[in-house]
Amino acid sequence: MAETTINRAYFSGLLQSVADRGRALVRVKRAEPLGVEALLGLAVKLLRGRGEASGAATASAILGGYAALGPRERRAWLVGAATRFGPDFEALAAAARAFLEAPDDAKAAELSDRAEPTRQELIRRLNHAPGGTLALVRMREDILDATREDAPLHALDRDFLHLFASWFNRGFLVLRRIDWSTPANILEKIIRYEAVHAISGWEELRRRLEPPDRRLYAFFHPALDDEPLIFVEVALTTAIPVAIQPLLASERTPLAPAAATTAVFYSISNAQRGLQGVSFGNFLIKQVVEDLRREWPRLQNFVTLSPAPGFAAWLARQRADETSSLLSHEARRALAFTDHAGWSTKAAAAEAVARAIPPLAAHYYLHARTPSGRVLDPVARFHLGNGARLERLNPRGDLSNTGLDQSLGLMVNYLYDLDHIEENHESYANRGEIAASPAVRKLAPSPGSVVARKKKGA
Amino acid sequence: MAETTINRAYFSGLLQSVADRGRALVRVKRAEPLGVEALLGLAVKLLRGRGEASGAATASAILGGYAALGPRERRAWLVGAATRFGPDFEALAAAARAFLEAPDDAKAAELSDRAEPTRQELIRRLNHAPGGTLALVRMREDILDATREDAPLHALDRDFLHLFASWFNRGFLVLRRIDWSTPANILEKIIRYEAVHAISGWEELRRRLEPPDRRLYAFFHPALDDEPLIFVEVALTTAIPVAIQPLLASERTPLAPAAATTAVFYSISNAQRGLQGVSFGNFLIKQVVEDLRREWPRLQNFVTLSPAPGFAAWLARQRADETSSLLSHEARRALAFTDHAGWSTKAAAAEAVARAIPPLAAHYYLHARTPSGRVLDPVARFHLGNGARLERLNPRGDLSNTGLDQSLGLMVNYLYDLDHIEENHESYANRGEIAASPAVRKLAPSPGSVVARKKKGA
Amino acid sequence: MAETTINRAYFSGLLQSVADRGRALVRVKRAEPLGVEALLGLAVKLLRGRGEASGAATASAILGGYAALGPRERRAWLVGAATRFGPDFEALAAAARAFLEAPDDAKAAELSDRAEPTRQELIRRLNHAPGGTLALVRMREDILDATREDAPLHALDRDFLHLFASWFNRGFLVLRRIDWSTPANILEKIIRYEAVHAISGWEELRRRLEPPDRRLYAFFHPALDDEPLIFVEVALTTAIPVAIQPLLASERTPLAPAAATTAVFYSISNAQRGLQGVSFGNFLIKQVVEDLRREWPRLQNFVTLSPAPGFAAWLARQRADETSSLLSHEARRALAFTDHAGWSTKAAAAEAVARAIPPLAAHYYLHARTPSGRVLDPVARFHLGNGARLERLNPRGDLSNTGLDQSLGLMVNYLYDLDHIEENHESYANRGEIAASPAVRKLAPSPGSVVARKKKGA
Amino acid sequence: MAETTINRAYFSGLLQSVADRGRALVRVKRAEPLGVEALLGLAVKLLRGRGEASGAATASAILGGYAALGPRERRAWLVGAATRFGPDFEALAAAARAFLEAPDDAKAAELSDRAEPTRQELIRRLNHAPGGTLALVRMREDILDATREDAPLHALDRDFLHLFASWFNRGFLVLRRIDWSTPANILEKIIRYEAVHAISGWEELRRRLEPPDRRLYAFFHPALDDEPLIFVEVALTTAIPVAIQPLLASERTPLAPAAATTAVFYSISNAQRGLQGVSFGNFLIKQVVEDLRREWPRLQNFVTLSPAPGFAAWLARQRADETSSLLSHEARRALAFTDHAGWSTKAAAAEAVARAIPPLAAHYYLHARTPSGRVLDPVARFHLGNGARLERLNPRGDLSNTGLDQSLGLMVNYLYDLDHIEENHESYANRGEIAASPAVRKLAPSPGSVVARKKKGA
Repeated sequence: MAETTINRAYFSGLLQSVADRGRALVRVKRAEPLGVEALLGLAVKLLRGRGEASGAATASAILGGYAALGPRERRAWLVGAATRFGPDFEALAAAARAFLEAPDDAKAAELSDRAEPTRQELIRRLNHAPGGTLALVRMREDILDATREDAPLHALDRDFLHLFASWFNRGFLVLRRIDWSTPANILEKIIRYEAVHAISGWEELRRRLEPPDRRLYAFFHPALDDEPLIFVEVALTTAIPVAIQPLLASERTPLAPAAATTAVFYSISNAQRGLQGVSFGNFLIKQVVEDLRREWPRLQNFVTLSPAPGFAAWLARQRADETSSLLSHEARRALAFTDHAGWSTKAAAAEAVARAIPPLAAHYYLHARTPSGRVLDPVARFHLGNGARLERLNPRGDLSNTGLDQSLGLMVNYLYDLDHIEENHESYANRGEIAASPAVRKLAPSPGSVVARKKKGA
Repeated sequence: MAETTINRAYFSGLLQSVADRGRALVRVKRAEPLGVEALLGLAVKLLRGRGEASGAATASAILGGYAALGPRERRAWLVGAATRFGPDFEALAAAARAFLEAPDDAKAAELSDRAEPTRQELIRRLNHAPGGTLALVRMREDILDATREDAPLHALDRDFLHLFASWFNRGFLVLRRIDWSTPANILEKIIRYEAVHAISGWEELRRRLEPPDRRLYAFFHPALDDEPLIFVEVALTTAIPVAIQPLLASERTPLAPAAATTAVFYSISNAQRGLQGVSFGNFLIKQVVEDLRREWPRLQNFVTLSPAPGFAAWLARQRADETSSLLSHEARRALAFTDHAGWSTKAAAAEAVARAIPPLAAHYYLHARTPSGRVLDPVARFHLGNGARLERLNPRGDLSNTGLDQSLGLMVNYLYDLDHIEENHESYANRGEIAASPAVRKLAPSPGSVVARKKKGA
Repeated sequence: MAETTINRAYFSGLLQSVADRGRALVRVKRAEPLGVEALLGLAVKLLRGRGEASGAATASAILGGYAALGPRERRAWLVGAATRFGPDFEALAAAARAFLEAPDDAKAAELSDRAEPTRQELIRRLNHAPGGTLALVRMREDILDATREDAPLHALDRDFLHLFASWFNRGFLVLRRIDWSTPANILEKIIRYEAVHAISGWEELRRRLEPPDRRLYAFFHPALDDEPLIFVEVALTTAIPVAIQPLLASERTPLAPAAATTAVFYSISNAQRGLQGVSFGNFLIKQVVEDLRREWPRLQNFVTLSPAPGFAAWLARQRADETSSLLSHEARRALAFTDHAGWSTKAAAAEAVARAIPPLAAHYYLHARTPSGRVLDPVARFHLGNGARLERLNPRGDLSNTGLDQSLGLMVNYLYDLDHIEENHESYANRGEIAASPAVRKLAPSPGSVVARKKKGA
Repeated sequence: MAETTINRAYFSGLLQSVADRGRALVRVKRAEPLGVEALLGLAVKLLRGRGEASGAATASAILGGYAALGPRERRAWLVGAATRFGPDFEALAAAARAFLEAPDDAKAAELSDRAEPTRQELIRRLNHAPGGTLALVRMREDILDATREDAPLHALDRDFLHLFASWFNRGFLVLRRIDWSTPANILEKIIRYEAVHAISGWEELRRRLEPPDRRLYAFFHPALDDEPLIFVEVALTTAIPVAIQPLLASERTPLAPAAATTAVFYSISNAQRGLQGVSFGNFLIKQVVEDLRREWPRLQNFVTLSPAPGFAAWLARQRADETSSLLSHEARRALAFTDHAGWSTKAAAAEAVARAIPPLAAHYYLHARTPSGRVLDPVARFHLGNGARLERLNPRGDLSNTGLDQSLGLMVNYLYDLDHIEENHESYANRGEIAASPAVRKLAPSPGSVVARKKKGA
């Protein structure tokens, strides 16, 4: 019988009240809805008070009133808040001059104080409302939608991001395993938020949670109790997988976890658009690697099975560039198959494409760069930046329509080797060097020369 | 039978992992202790990385290493961190000039970025360590101790305070009732941290927790699980109390809470010195007022029974000023009794003093001010600033040695009337007007004139 | 903010270990399965020991081994246990003779001891296994299936029932509300076990849980943690409902609970066949009535909307009895419509049937009896036995195929009026009197005479 | 970071409602107390109903009323319940005759039914009251106190014990570790209930809970939430200890648990007198052995350090028997020292006694028996019956006054070797053979002969 230390139980109740506060917001009823100006007036009032007297109630009224606005009014309120609660330019200018005259720590501090826009204090005080944190995360979704059009919102967005990065510090995040006995209201969010390999319904969800060789972990924040922030899906296997469909097959014989040697991270999804720019994925993967390793010491490999979202587009550009020496005659012929629907189901075509892709993919990852010198593939940037190594290229990794569209079926494995993560990360961050397995490296051996040649040709 | 919604139970486990992370720090073992320079080197490393790769481990090593240092080395490390990780003065100057040239939102934002010292990022990354938040709160205790001597630490202290104010936002605090079935390791902290009316041991603690007419509430933060931040002790009574000793008497017949009309806040204690400057008390009192009112609708009065810590010293100054017209001949004679030890136990002397004090106390609260115009009494500043009203002066409120020393026995009641809190607060904050009951006001009726006269006399 | 007393949190961890023990059983692996005789041998061993030394392990081995048997072997094991571990007839006979000779308390006690079959001790010791309770509940399902054929199993079944009635004493049951944030593995059991109005899937389940005017409550037992024992579904409404379909409609505007006057128990399902004969429903309804009343003081009516499972069959018998004077000519004509499929969708037929049914239904409930004198309808027996009153007859209550088949659409409301429950129950239990509303009573006014006449006719 | 499966959290709330029910009982207020006869009348009513209608309320009234009675009235009520609610002698006699005529399973079952006294049903229904289980455990304390004088209560006590043995089946017990963060109201019960080595106060309690080499485990029952049933105190050491005082010393350097090789059970206390006769200790020790072994695989020895409560008395009888050949001349001389107070502090005396005791103690344990053939020492009966082996005799094990009084300082170690527990238990249970280490056995080599000789001499 597992015996639990009693002190654990004590804290287990702590979050209950946070949750209650969160739900309380929903119950606030307004006799008549407030307009944009009234709500901006409340913001002034909220900022003016010492903040405590009736602060939480005022904050609730603002957030509740905002939620009841239509999209246009919301935007008006946001623009109003962005423009009216900026820093005091005069005071800031005075502080700037004082610092320039005789720079020292105290004057820098004064400058920092003056440079902080009132908006940040507004956001902090709005957070006093029960359920305020969630309401603010939702508000930032509106801001992100609107920033393209309303320039002043960029400043407001910056303030939100600044505070969210502070509030959602990794030290405050809690890792939880999600399984088939997790509350349904959380599970339905997993279904909704899964962004990589869509979950069609409850039965498919169960297949990703219940078998003993499947795991799903999420980060939570105490103030956002039933909202996962980010989650990762894991399969325990006996080998590094080359394709996603067998992993997700509805008829599978599950593996006994004790027999597994490999943990595969086959899907990572951010669940809160309003927290865009606050980075969790890196912490999540590493925490899960550590936890799995402790639970199943036999596990040796920690790899992803990842999409290659930019590959097909890049390849199309290469094919369109008739001068490109990157594509051999044979490769061009093979790729021509892919112009015809259904190619992947025809053995010969599929075979030819699968042969053609690996060296091209190796080039795509190892040598192709954006004009500013960045790796092209966003998924690669994430994992390489985390210190993972590009381990293997799987030309028939994802034969779904999405997979064929974005990468002609290519999926790749990134390897998380805790012993080399740090040096990989440093080499990548400081010198742009890409960690790759010898096998991958061999496929695109003369990067310099190829690229050089190509450049000459251009 | 109380029935519980099941979803509550889910979140109740959330904090467990936070707690585990906290305890994990303790277990970190160091082969050999690191010195000040090595630990500053680790800080450089922590800041250099993208922060995630080995960040939490590095942060742990720094915090563990710091905890193992002696006081002198700790101070050296803090000064090192304060001076080496300040803002980049050149970049800041450039941003200042750019802003002054053509002030706009974007340049103000850039200025804000440049003005933020690297120290803040260091603190944020140290918080990634398991148990980091508590370690940082403890570290700030060291800083507070050292700021008197080491000027550079003021800047570092400012950075800590800035982040703590953000992290300990009221929206993240959790109110818990503490009672006789609270874990012992938390109860012993209540004994230790009680700052107003000392708790002599477990039996006295029980008397403050277990009777049905006694309550103790505390704020907790999810990342500091078994550390109360602030707590308030409450007695339920049938009248506004005039003295503390009967409330704390060891032999009492408890009152049935349903019969109570009055809730008395007789002690408020901050429990974390490292959070000095982050204000919780105001939120705590108002939350407890709301909760009590919901639980016991019969409760009508919410008052404090508070010390008057500056009164005796102020009175001594009045007595020393022979020209002061504030003290009548009779009052001077009565106060002369207090120069003799044991005066409070002699009926005639005690009686005379008790008669002399109220008008003087009324003057002390209503009209006396610091040179900068603030109310003299720190406890009064706190409650008046919260919007409470000075309700009654109790000349025999606290006959303990401490009470006699600091206020000749005076205690006062502040009244929290939720309907007037806001206007009281605003009048006080904006116009310096002090909310007081008519009875108190009548005791010092002609403030202007008295003060005016006195000023003329000077 | 709801504030929780901290002591609650403590016990919240208690059941965790019970749950762990329960799951542990599943993990027990057997190198090779044991046969029936070997498992009966283990039972002897389990009974012989003082029971503690290796008791839990032996019990686990038996329960695990039993679970691995096929149906035929299971039955053989059960018969073996039933016949080999009965009481000692000789000792029992001796005790019986001793008691008959000189009856006294001590001899009665001795007789009681001797009469208890060893089987009960076997069951008690099997319960020592982790997860034993659930395994025993499952084992009783097998027994119930087999009792029809294997007479000796009746005795064994009696022993199980005796112990279950003791273990599942109402004092040990826990009422929990089930809602949309309940763990999915419990929710799927609700879907599976709903016996009255089938739940088609997760979306329909959500409609019964999530709207504010819908509730679902279940009893749990600490040792069967994620297995509901019985549950009831409740709708909050503004009137006593006359039909089930509108209650279950997929498109509904939910009612604000504070506006409701009526709580409708529209489905009660036993979830554990293995606990057949241990009665929970009565406790459940009354507990829920009390809890709802406390939560929503405006609620005035607590009624069921219940099926009439025996009505169609009884009516068919009446129609077949051509001499029955119960059926008027008009009624016979109306009922003739029901012989044709689709009658309920034809206005005239439906109308005629709906007019004909109420007086017949009133007779069915008020006067019809089994040969042994019991009320015919099993649902009526349950609610009347609980002290409810037959409130209203709804001829178009359930127009689903099931509803038409079993009762020509009839549903009835039983009223739980806490003020009269006890006297209703006593009248029914002691004198067979049926509590019915005046309206129902008026529909079948002369029971005696009608029945009398019919009897004469027979 | 420890990651928790979410489903655990769900059940963690289950017990809360049980706890609430328990506390509810306390709040029941009676306008005027009921007398003995009225309370017996309520019992009749409780038994008459189908038990559900108003059952829980009636049960509450009885238990609340009983608790308000004085000792004499309580006894009267108990005797009334014992005598009025016995079995129906006539019906029982009829069943007995029927069985004797033609014994079969069904008739035995009928006999069993009739032999069960109504008292058991009364107790079962009383348990329906919120908090009923605890009230019944307290009621049995009264019964135990009274049985010496009131013979009819023996039957009632038997009924309580029968039901308690069923309700407190080991399958329903939960093991919890008690530590310094356990709720204070539970800790104070540990202080109060410790029966072997008294705990003087909170500081001593802390010394038994907080150091990493100290553990305290207790069994709880879900319906008795904050009442431990039995608890055991454990010290982790590097050797089998020879004396208790060093273990309990207030100044000790704690051992790192990972360095420990031995777990010492140095105190086992039953906490509920009302559960006398329901055996938990055996289960507790074995569960703790298993849990410790899993947590600290290095642990090799699981031993007790136990008192020898009957030794001094037995030895006094041997000394009084001048014909006893058991005591050598030398031994008699050494034991004569013990007739003088303070002997244990005099080196020569203490030395002589310590030399004399072991062979006598070996005889006491291995060969001395009660007239009915049982081992004399009750602690020995408990551990030997559990399958432990008598490992070592420590003549200077407990030099406290209690220790000197009851055993001249002797303490013994019993060894729990899981590999031999079962065979030890069986040998002891079936053949009365005592498992003892070779060292102990060598000290009393010729049991037969000694005893034989002694018998001849008698």
